Amino acid sequence: MQASQLLIIDLLRHGVRRHPTQEIVSRRIEGDIHRYSYADCYQRTCQLAHRLERLGVQPGERVATLAWNTYRHLELYYAVSGIGAVLHTVNPRLIADQIEWILNDADATWLFVDACFAELAAEVVNNVPQLKGVIVLADNCQQPPLEHCKHPLHAYEQILDGLPGHYDWPAFAEDSAALLCYTSGTTGNPKGVLSSHRAMVLHAQATVSAELLDLRASTVLMPMVAMYHAGAWGAPYAAPLAGCKLVLPGNGMNGAAMYELIANEQVTVGLGVPTIWLTLHNYLAENGQNLPSLERVCVGGAASPLGLVKTYDQDYDVYWQPIWGMTETGPLACSAPPEPNLLALPREERYRIQTTAGRACFGVDMQIVDANGEALPHDGETSGELRVRGPWIANSYYQRSDPDTFADGWLATGDIAVIDPQGYMKVVDRKKDVIKSGGEWISSLDIENICSQHPAVNESCVIGVKHPKWDERPLLLVVANKGKTIDKETLYTFFEGKIAKWWMPDDILIVPELPHTGTGKLIKNELRKQYENYLLERSSDA
Amino acid sequence: MQASQLLIIDLLRHGVRRHPTQEIVSRRIEGDIHRYSYADCYQRTCQLAHRLERLGVQPGERVATLAWNTYRHLELYYAVSGIGAVLHTVNPRLIADQIEWILNDADATWLFVDACFAELAAEVVNNVPQLKGVIVLADNCQQPPLEHCKHPLHAYEQILDGLPGHYDWPAFAEDSAALLCYTSGTTGNPKGVLSSHRAMVLHAQATVSAELLDLRASTVLMPMVAMYHAGAWGAPYAAPLAGCKLVLPGNGMNGAAMYELIANEQVTVGLGVPTIWLTLHNYLAENGQNLPSLERVCVGGAASPLGLVKTYDQDYDVYWQPIWGMTETGPLACSAPPEPNLLALPREERYRIQTTAGRACFGVDMQIVDANGEALPHDGETSGELRVRGPWIANSYYQRSDPDTFADGWLATGDIAVIDPQGYMKVVDRKKDVIKSGGEWISSLDIENICSQHPAVNESCVIGVKHPKWDERPLLLVVANKGKTIDKETLYTFFEGKIAKWWMPDDILIVPELPHTGTGKLIKNELRKQYENYLLERSSDA
Ligand SMILES: Nc1ncnc2c1ncn2[C@@H]1O[C@H](COP(=O)(O)O)[C@@H](O)[C@H]1O
Repeated sequence: MQASQLLIIDLLRHGVRRHPTQEIVSRRIEGDIHRYSYADCYQRTCQLAHRLERLGVQPGERVATLAWNTYRHLELYYAVSGIGAVLHTVNPRLIADQIEWILNDADATWLFVDACFAELAAEVVNNVPQLKGVIVLADNCQQPPLEHCKHPLHAYEQILDGLPGHYDWPAFAEDSAALLCYTSGTTGNPKGVLSSHRAMVLHAQATVSAELLDLRASTVLMPMVAMYHAGAWGAPYAAPLAGCKLVLPGNGMNGAAMYELIANEQVTVGLGVPTIWLTLHNYLAENGQNLPSLERVCVGGAASPLGLVKTYDQDYDVYWQPIWGMTETGPLACSAPPEPNLLALPREERYRIQTTAGRACFGVDMQIVDANGEALPHDGETSGELRVRGPWIANSYYQRSDPDTFADGWLATGDIAVIDPQGYMKVVDRKKDVIKSGGEWISSLDIENICSQHPAVNESCVIGVKHPKWDERPLLLVVANKGKTIDKETLYTFFEGKIAKWWMPDDILIVPELPHTGTGKLIKNELRKQYENYLLERSSDA
Repeated sequence: MQASQLLIIDLLRHGVRRHPTQEIVSRRIEGDIHRYSYADCYQRTCQLAHRLERLGVQPGERVATLAWNTYRHLELYYAVSGIGAVLHTVNPRLIADQIEWILNDADATWLFVDACFAELAAEVVNNVPQLKGVIVLADNCQQPPLEHCKHPLHAYEQILDGLPGHYDWPAFAEDSAALLCYTSGTTGNPKGVLSSHRAMVLHAQATVSAELLDLRASTVLMPMVAMYHAGAWGAPYAAPLAGCKLVLPGNGMNGAAMYELIANEQVTVGLGVPTIWLTLHNYLAENGQNLPSLERVCVGGAASPLGLVKTYDQDYDVYWQPIWGMTETGPLACSAPPEPNLLALPREERYRIQTTAGRACFGVDMQIVDANGEALPHDGETSGELRVRGPWIANSYYQRSDPDTFADGWLATGDIAVIDPQGYMKVVDRKKDVIKSGGEWISSLDIENICSQHPAVNESCVIGVKHPKWDERPLLLVVANKGKTIDKETLYTFFEGKIAKWWMPDDILIVPELPHTGTGKLIKNELRKQYENYLLERSSDA
């Protein structure tokens, strides 16, 4: 066979070859809507590659970004990896100290920032001594000043200007590093996951396949998951491969902005965490709107709540497609797309499957294991820690050894899951979130899931808190829907017959809001700390 | 990244994991219809692997087959490659001498034969000294005697019997050899093409993608291309990956047998050369039948004649999907699937595209070059020799050096083609079939294509024959439709205005039939030899 290597730049080149006029539409940080074609994108990507070469960026060097989902970030995705350097996406929602720590840990030498993060960057860059320069992603006339920045400062449009629109991409081994993402760990320092070209190309092929996102040239894809988080779930790579129209929301993560883009651009498939689709639903419900073009929302990063699955089906005729993955797994590994077999099932049975995490796609092997690492049966009942392996799964953290996570050629995910005989996997909890009541496990996710079905509930969170007799007992925190009220008694009545008696939360608190990470996940350990002694105090009060 | 290798056995394992009850239906050589599930197939594949191991088959060893498309051949596809040996498919339509030559060239050590090829095998095996045994693919009670065979003889069902239905597949490098196919060259000795696991897995992924065959679990796939020819275009690998129901026609290559299987099994997609679909059309037309389940026929191995494209659309509502490839290219590389854009075109424009060879899928690069190897423009007009490269394209023949075919990291295909600005490639001729008239090229395929549109024409063939003034001039041979007659003058009138004056064939002969290779291709060089001096003699007669 020819020694052809699987390289990321070939995904874009293929998109341009087959779909040169297909559109990429971005909401810019400047506020307006920008649109251009894959051919235009490729031309600017070539210009950027020339600039990176002239700036002296070397193969393997880390080029960092602090940026939203826009065409400029997309150009960086391809140009940086295309020349053999490593795109290092940094989460701008982290605090300045953490960003500084990450940039130093990764030994980043260049930093590209959206204008809206200029202030954040200014706080950080002087403590990142190895930086060779900072480039602001903004029009020439809108360059913000970076106060006191001691590194050379460039304007993105200026550095592209006048460079050739063709580039002779180097050939190199497909195992070369391409992308570095840090996981938004809720405790400790973030951990870097370094992915190769081979991994990202194979992941892109799996992503467009019927087993995962089922993308094609007629798909209008809107990733509402950030390009600074797990590579926007691979959307920047998968879209040109499939020839999708790509709609990039910039920093417009509120309901009105999402609605506008979906409606105007006729988006058919959205990607995002449950919170995003909750936000969109809240907006649509409040404004009596609908989204006729939208066919599917692909939802991962957290379990799919039954309430939202139903709402999207019954109110909007949108298929809620669960996906599972993590930064360490490419990220996509499982899904439950709307296959004819599944759509033919009775509605309640289909909803049940839509609240699992789906089935593994080709390339990914999964098993669940007990505390000794012994494989457990896929019977839909036994739960154990989920392990995965495959060609786009990490086998180490960047510059950090972690033998517990990467043992025996598997990745230990830290998710507690069941797998049913059909292969549907369901996360019942994070290993660290599971509630140990009298030696038995209670799944916080299961209770949250049932709670989400009450029409007055907007969001809920179950945590294990200290208990004098049972070690830990569940405490439920609930946020009511806008304009609705709810009380403890109503909820207890609602739970009756739906959850086992001994799973019943020891108390229910109605709260105005719940804390989330930058990527929209509940920060349970913050709540655990806050409420740690709640039951102990209550019992001593009584 | 984890060091996961792309291995062929994982395609079947994946099919079983996701679609254990999906059916594989075969017309057996015994005549009856056999059906079982992917789970059954996997179990027998494991049994076969155990047997191969016990027979002492070593990694890299060539295990040959002389067999039609049935479930048993499918089991061999997976078990032989799965244990790390090389499946060597031999074309039983070749003459005994050639088969003997191929088995010796490949150094095959085991031979699996369908009962219907027992006689052929008996002629051959005693001249293949290194053979360690011959296994007949038949029920125990139907074992034919292999007269005078000096090698040990086994019955397939007997050797599987009682062995465990699970097998611990070895892990090895994805670059290991998996499949050896000889091209059915029309001149000289056949040339072996050895494909790796990596190549076949990447090819399978491309095959199921929307750019090539667009296969999914709801597809019912019937490969009418033989499993001894270019790996049945990868169908045995692609079907379990996509979870298709697979319908294997055995040796039932006539119209009635095809019709029966398509109708009874509700086949949605067929694969085969144009001649197969001509055979089917002839049967349907004669019997006033239709095929409501059939959605697409995917047609390669020869150019798509406009007449058949139209007939399948207008008479049967079946989309004629051109594909292009050759044994050296995996084989699939290009296609023109029914994408919404294409279906939206005016009918004649769509038909025009359906008579091209389609566009390259992801992974395959194409260019056309002049006699000096210089790249030519993709303007839809300039023609040159087609070159391809990609991860499943051969870079040499087995045990044979051929620097002209494999130069500069490309495969020189021997096809003369044009590529249009949208990327649609069209083969205008084989390099050796092109007609050189007074220094200019005439495409035999173009004339055949126009000829095929005349309602009384069943098949046609244009060859270049010697001419005293122009060196070569085209001669057209035509087979009329059953029950129809046609004459020279009618055809000349039909051609007027459709082809350039100087392309007009110098003579037209109505013949009862045309010679084909075992895989249904016209044997033009036989006709060229036969008619070489036809025009010279005619002019001296006159
Ligand atoms: N479909 C899902 N159901 C439940 N949890 C999920 C799902 N998808 C992702 N997660 C969680 O999100 C984690 C990965 O987070 P991250 O690396 O930040 O994307 C996983 O380990 C899971 O705990």
